[in-house]
Amino acid sequence: MKKVGILGGGQLGRMLLQAAINYPVETHLMENDPLAPAAHLCHHFCSGDIRSFDDVYAFGKELDALTIEIESVNIEALEKLEAEGVKIYPKPAALKIIKNKIAQKEFYAVHEIPSSAFVVTKNKAELEAQSHFLPAVHKLAMGGYDGKGVQVIGTAAEIEFGFDAPAVLEKKVIIHKEIAIIIAVSDDGSTAIYPPVDMVFDPHLNLLSHQLCPAELPEKVFWKVEAIALNLVRKLNSAGIFAIELFADADGQVLVNEVAPRVHNSGHHSIEANYCSQFDMLWRIILGYPLGNTTPILPAALVNLVGSAGFTGPVKYEGLEEVLSMDNVFVHLYGKSDTKPGRKMGHVTILSKEKQDLLHKVNKIKHLLFAKA
Amino acid sequence: MKKVGILGGGQLGRMLLQAAINYPVETHLMENDPLAPAAHLCHHFCSGDIRSFDDVYAFGKELDALTIEIESVNIEALEKLEAEGVKIYPKPAALKIIKNKIAQKEFYAVHEIPSSAFVVTKNKAELEAQSHFLPAVHKLAMGGYDGKGVQVIGTAAEIEFGFDAPAVLEKKVIIHKEIAIIIAVSDDGSTAIYPPVDMVFDPHLNLLSHQLCPAELPEKVFWKVEAIALNLVRKLNSAGIFAIELFADADGQVLVNEVAPRVHNSGHHSIEANYCSQFDMLWRIILGYPLGNTTPILPAALVNLVGSAGFTGPVKYEGLEEVLSMDNVFVHLYGKSDTKPGRKMGHVTILSKEKQDLLHKVNKIKHLLFAKA
Repeated sequence: MKKVGILGGGQLGRMLLQAAINYPVETHLMENDPLAPAAHLCHHFCSGDIRSFDDVYAFGKELDALTIEIESVNIEALEKLEAEGVKIYPKPAALKIIKNKIAQKEFYAVHEIPSSAFVVTKNKAELEAQSHFLPAVHKLAMGGYDGKGVQVIGTAAEIEFGFDAPAVLEKKVIIHKEIAIIIAVSDDGSTAIYPPVDMVFDPHLNLLSHQLCPAELPEKVFWKVEAIALNLVRKLNSAGIFAIELFADADGQVLVNEVAPRVHNSGHHSIEANYCSQFDMLWRIILGYPLGNTTPILPAALVNLVGSAGFTGPVKYEGLEEVLSMDNVFVHLYGKSDTKPGRKMGHVTILSKEKQDLLHKVNKIKHLLFAKA
Repeated sequence: MKKVGILGGGQLGRMLLQAAINYPVETHLMENDPLAPAAHLCHHFCSGDIRSFDDVYAFGKELDALTIEIESVNIEALEKLEAEGVKIYPKPAALKIIKNKIAQKEFYAVHEIPSSAFVVTKNKAELEAQSHFLPAVHKLAMGGYDGKGVQVIGTAAEIEFGFDAPAVLEKKVIIHKEIAIIIAVSDDGSTAIYPPVDMVFDPHLNLLSHQLCPAELPEKVFWKVEAIALNLVRKLNSAGIFAIELFADADGQVLVNEVAPRVHNSGHHSIEANYCSQFDMLWRIILGYPLGNTTPILPAALVNLVGSAGFTGPVKYEGLEEVLSMDNVFVHLYGKSDTKPGRKMGHVTILSKEKQDLLHKVNKIKHLLFAKA
């Protein structure tokens, strides 16, 4: 049996280990928190800091392969492990580009991958010189995650909210739609493309409301999304799972927003909605099996369950019974003992041939299910 | 979080723990073998003998609820735990009936549940007096499992192959079809019925060839199967998952063969084929959530992967790549390091609207995939 390690023990690691149960593989996981969502689901748990060279290197050197569930890992250790023959998914060279938002934007520019105009700002002073570039979005080069390290700067007066550290300032795009697409790449370079997902935002809260898959896109936009995402992934030159988030404007122009070199929230519905889920697919890649079938079994919607505003502490789920009594609905709770505002506590997938049924249930679930303390 | 224990760590425990990952539950598992298929997937592993009173009692007394993945557990310990307030799925009283084939047959007789005619034989001498009752099937009262403890006795000359221990001798039935049906019962007595499954036998090998779900049954037979199974489960008076195996003869008469008070091989396709799998369903029952939806998403077939004849030792899978490259096919391997003839090593589920597609892939998989050493 191959020995495969995962860096990070959150919900992505948890669902990855859930999919591993179908395969002959010896699983290892490194994570600081022994009570993390994925910690109890592996053959071998290793307590350690995924950002530490020594910890990652010591963890990885006895393994056949290593993957990540978060970008904030020690890349130098991964590079050394790769040089010594451990397979890394994604390759450290690809991760290095993606992990740093400046490198990521420069990579798009060099490879002519459509993406919003940007300038690099090393500090607040450099940001202040860019008031002519507004409105824009300021993104920290390193360490941003799940909306953290991102600041919209609409006017010169808002520059004070920007970051005093290396960052990119991206020209604001008039977004008609946000789309995500997941592409799987095997060691031999073959690819499998999942149907694109509509990321539907709540216009009042400016938060993701729900996801719909397959996305409803004009044919031209659909092909652009696939072609741009596939080109991007090919240029990264790495096996693994890649989630590409894109914007489409009202004219059907498509721009890459960002890419994650791992399983991703925008693919969670694939557990039930596709013949091969993104988690199953990553195991196929790591274990050297053929890529799976990305065809949808049924159209799907997905609602994230995030910690309700105003509640911090041991989680209580409100409305869980009602949602569990709904017919074509799948609840996934991540086993986190404590909730806090905005924390990802679980997700709910809905399958249906009827878009009205999907949307009706999305609304019902959003008004029923809460993670409170 | 409720603390729930599982007695036994084989593939049923493994798939049960795979389904537990979606719920907030603290999982405990007791099993002798720390390398068993399910051993690494729980929060707390406890090394112990599920047949030992002391081990089962010590394991269970700190838990909120307990379930089993095999019948050969210590019932006295379960009875004591139940008396002390631990919830047991199934109830020890139901398990006691089912665990002993004599008690099971007498239970059918008392409750007028249609089942083949039988006599009880306490030893070989009593069996020898029953030559007028042949052809028949001799079944050991205690300890039979997966075809062990069952002996067909066609003629008086074959009586020598019978058991010299308490057993039932069941009149041989001319079987037209073997059918399995799974029924879920919640604490409040509400029930959910899965569609029945066709257990298709290989006429040459006299082994299960594959399962098809939903079973193709004349309407009258279908209603009989549901009504008989539901009546049986109600009479057992216990919450849990129950798998009932039945025979239909050429005239559409339906007889109960046997019942298992737990998740069962005949329900493995439900992982992908039904909105709520049998494993998900058992968690809903134990955690006090509403019963799930047993509707099929798509018709399904299932092929068991058993150890090939003539091979014993560390397993090597033959044909795995070919099967993993098939489109609407789901492979489950149980993570057993060693194979032996007939050992259940995994299963493969196929989903399709088209029966021809299901059967074509069943045949392909049976000729491609092998567990050898």
